[in-house]
Amino acid sequence: MKAKVHVTLKNGVLDPQGKAVQHALDGLGFDGIDDVRQGKFIELELSETDADVARARVTDMCEKLLANTVIENYAIEIADA
Amino acid sequence: MKAKVHVTLKNGVLDPQGKAVQHALDGLGFDGIDDVRQGKFIELELSETDADVARARVTDMCEKLLANTVIENYAIEIADA
Repeated sequence: MKAKVHVTLKNGVLDPQGKAVQHALDGLGFDGIDDVRQGKFIELELSETDADVARARVTDMCEKLLANTVIENYAIEIADA
Repeated sequence: MKAKVHVTLKNGVLDPQGKAVQHALDGLGFDGIDDVRQGKFIELELSETDADVARARVTDMCEKLLANTVIENYAIEIADA
């Protein structure tokens, strides 16, 4: 079973990495970019076969390691593989 | 208009960051994890209003800056905002 996790900075949290990307794009001549936010995308391959159990375990992983819940949000998608 | 870009390592390319996450999860007692791959997730806020034009521009950004196409794949989603 495959799990996809998006970890993104919460609104209002400064994103220097996103700003750096935005400035680099500006420097390459791409205009009309109002904002860039950069997050993480984590794909997990689990041996678990029950989708509900898998989601609960991945939520636990996010809370304990994958996301810093003070400043980051996470979203989990579970996909049959 | 919002664009979401996923940048992921191509299959077969070693992912030390993913392996580090996998080992850390193992160390926390999460077993049954067969593989972890970590990629980037970039959200762009564009002033462009035409979805086709926006997609073409973001593709250009991926080729020139956001992805290293030798080792990385990218996927673009355009969403009305």
